[in-house]
Amino acid sequence: MSTPATLQATLNPALKSWIESANDPACDFPIQNLPFGIFSNAVNPAPRAGVAIGEWIVDLAVLAQAGLLTCGNDEGGGNVFAKPRLNDFIALGRDAWRSVRIALCGLLARDTATLRDDAALRQRALVPQSDATLHLPVDIPGYTDFYSSKEHATNVGCMFRDPKNALLPNWSEMPIGYNGRASSVVVSGTPVRRPNGQIKLPNEERPVFSACRKLDIELEMGFIVGAGNRLGEPVACNDAESHIFGMVLLNDWSARDIQQWEYVPLGPFNAKTFATTISPWIVTLDALEPFRTATPAQDPQPLAYLRHEGDHAFDIELEVTLRPEGAATATKISRTNFRLMYWSMAQQLAHHTVAGCNTRVGDLMGSGTISGPTPDSCGSLLESTWNGQRPITLATGGERTFIEDGDELTLTGWCQGDGYRVGFGACAGQILAARAVASAG
Amino acid sequence: MSTPATLQATLNPALKSWIESANDPACDFPIQNLPFGIFSNAVNPAPRAGVAIGEWIVDLAVLAQAGLLTCGNDEGGGNVFAKPRLNDFIALGRDAWRSVRIALCGLLARDTATLRDDAALRQRALVPQSDATLHLPVDIPGYTDFYSSKEHATNVGCMFRDPKNALLPNWSEMPIGYNGRASSVVVSGTPVRRPNGQIKLPNEERPVFSACRKLDIELEMGFIVGAGNRLGEPVACNDAESHIFGMVLLNDWSARDIQQWEYVPLGPFNAKTFATTISPWIVTLDALEPFRTATPAQDPQPLAYLRHEGDHAFDIELEVTLRPEGAATATKISRTNFRLMYWSMAQQLAHHTVAGCNTRVGDLMGSGTISGPTPDSCGSLLESTWNGQRPITLATGGERTFIEDGDELTLTGWCQGDGYRVGFGACAGQILAARAVASAG
Repeated sequence: MSTPATLQATLNPALKSWIESANDPACDFPIQNLPFGIFSNAVNPAPRAGVAIGEWIVDLAVLAQAGLLTCGNDEGGGNVFAKPRLNDFIALGRDAWRSVRIALCGLLARDTATLRDDAALRQRALVPQSDATLHLPVDIPGYTDFYSSKEHATNVGCMFRDPKNALLPNWSEMPIGYNGRASSVVVSGTPVRRPNGQIKLPNEERPVFSACRKLDIELEMGFIVGAGNRLGEPVACNDAESHIFGMVLLNDWSARDIQQWEYVPLGPFNAKTFATTISPWIVTLDALEPFRTATPAQDPQPLAYLRHEGDHAFDIELEVTLRPEGAATATKISRTNFRLMYWSMAQQLAHHTVAGCNTRVGDLMGSGTISGPTPDSCGSLLESTWNGQRPITLATGGERTFIEDGDELTLTGWCQGDGYRVGFGACAGQILAARAVASAG
Repeated sequence: MSTPATLQATLNPALKSWIESANDPACDFPIQNLPFGIFSNAVNPAPRAGVAIGEWIVDLAVLAQAGLLTCGNDEGGGNVFAKPRLNDFIALGRDAWRSVRIALCGLLARDTATLRDDAALRQRALVPQSDATLHLPVDIPGYTDFYSSKEHATNVGCMFRDPKNALLPNWSEMPIGYNGRASSVVVSGTPVRRPNGQIKLPNEERPVFSACRKLDIELEMGFIVGAGNRLGEPVACNDAESHIFGMVLLNDWSARDIQQWEYVPLGPFNAKTFATTISPWIVTLDALEPFRTATPAQDPQPLAYLRHEGDHAFDIELEVTLRPEGAATATKISRTNFRLMYWSMAQQLAHHTVAGCNTRVGDLMGSGTISGPTPDSCGSLLESTWNGQRPITLATGGERTFIEDGDELTLTGWCQGDGYRVGFGACAGQILAARAVASAG
């Protein structure tokens, strides 16, 4: 896990940019971050690759065309940044990601005149975030969701199974996961329609068809696969992080009442497939390097294929807010940290591939709900309200057990550095009323 | 469900082709079938679209270029059949599929001279199947697997839960399904490596890491989505078949010992994601029209969103054979029929989308294991050997409880018409020995 010196230099906490908004200690996008995304604007409605810096987006397609990046303008003029998804750039591999990071850090550093003093190029290459539309950053060939928070698994086990044996015996032996639905992964800001489905009410013999009455969030993070593996060729745990491009925030919207009725024996389906929201900016694993920290102790010691050396957790603060429709302010409903996860991303990827499954560039792997040990650190309303028994009081008045129509739920996340923070931006979605049941039924 | 007259004419049992091998009553690919696939050969190694007829493949890219098809040579010369997957053709919609079928039926009919008497064109447009390599016919954006055979669900429930309440209460109310792994779907003929994974042995406190000891098949059929739906806009049950392009055979290889340990509470994962094999030829729903038959009676009556009028089952004979490595002959180990499925494909698609999930062209939806009421009609070895307790005797000597290294498993399926059959070809795979555990562990 040694970091090349040129890469190490881009992580220096003292670095500043000539883009002043990037130097605000509360800004998510300082020069140390440089997350990748896909954006468009009114002047140029074609979605293309960009990097967030302060309140701006750097248009990578423009920089590549100007010959200022290390890739994107070679091989007969093909511009890997002029495409509507990042997959082709990501597929170039880790050396390419790093060389672009190093080049950008150089161009944006306070003392570099190249872009700073070229008004015409700056005009074309910098777009205010406030004027831009952000798009899904990658085509997602496969979406897998894990279940790697011990506190979350324990809470759910207590509620729905046996409080005395809340954790199932397999949970401590492997990162339990399941296949999600990739087609309905949407980017932050996309409204989410409350799902209809079968609900089994207590004391009713048969299920009813109804709008979901227990709509919930799941606070997660996801990683994006940057280098796939071939069918039948597992990724070794110690090598797994080199297959990861970066991370996003992920809200695994969940219809608890639909889930409870449908999930036995094959797992959640319609309770989850109606939408999954991710944040638009992919923060690279390189940018997260300074925030690497110890993985929680694992007891029992994992089987050999799940062992790795060194630190594989990341210290990422996480917060969830809820804002009712029309309310001026949002209420913080959770605060937790990604470093609490029992199973690391490397272990997840090693387990995912150990039986031979192949992964592909752009695959999304969710962490599972990230819960801490207290009610105000739970990653779902199911847990923090204990299945609706303990309502949350909102700052703007009223209370919530589950999500109501018009509510906007927002996840944020950041790593706190010395005088700066590496942030993820927002992962937000507002809930629309369900389709009329008559039309669906 | 009325069939246009021009389409109806392509289903006439009396039709014959000038390609004599297509007129053999035992041939899977008569002129009434015309299934679509992707092939290449030594002369032209570029994968492209073809249709199987008798012992030949019609090269659709060549026919389109010659102006003999109704699509594929329009819009500035773009040839939708010259691509390595069928998705772009399928995305043109049902009218396009039907017009190509009608055009092909015309060209291949015994009395049509156009292609029959043009030796030069025939030479370019017809490739012997024996000289061709068949490829995965579609890019599969999403793979979903259902669990729609009542006999299969009952057998599994008896074995692993409670024989007195073998069917869970939700099973009779909805087509239970789960998300599968699309990346590891492979075409017939691809060797399949026995997976390694965690296995919990009786009387052992902790799991071991081992090659799978209970490797199994699941005899299924799958349908290919031909027209997607948008997020939040469910497909109505009565309209669902218009969203289906066609069907394939599907073998959902399953590692029973890995599955039993991992599947609670989120469903099967590594036990299934190592490989799923499909047959190379997609038989269109139009070609299956004459074999439409009554859906089994459903009790209780499904909720309104799962009701449809008319017949929605298809009479498709299914067979599984096992051939040990080096053996001259294969042993038939199962014989059943797709018409036994409790939940129809239309009901599966309506249920899949009712909460708002979007589907996309090329999505694969597996039926779930297709089992009949007797041991010799079970779609898995788990059931026919009752979890290894009743070995099957092979025609070539020896017996089997589960699959051994070198065994080749082959699914076949066909609809029996009057003097002809509409077949699916083979869905085959041979099992390779597992990777050495030391290298994976």
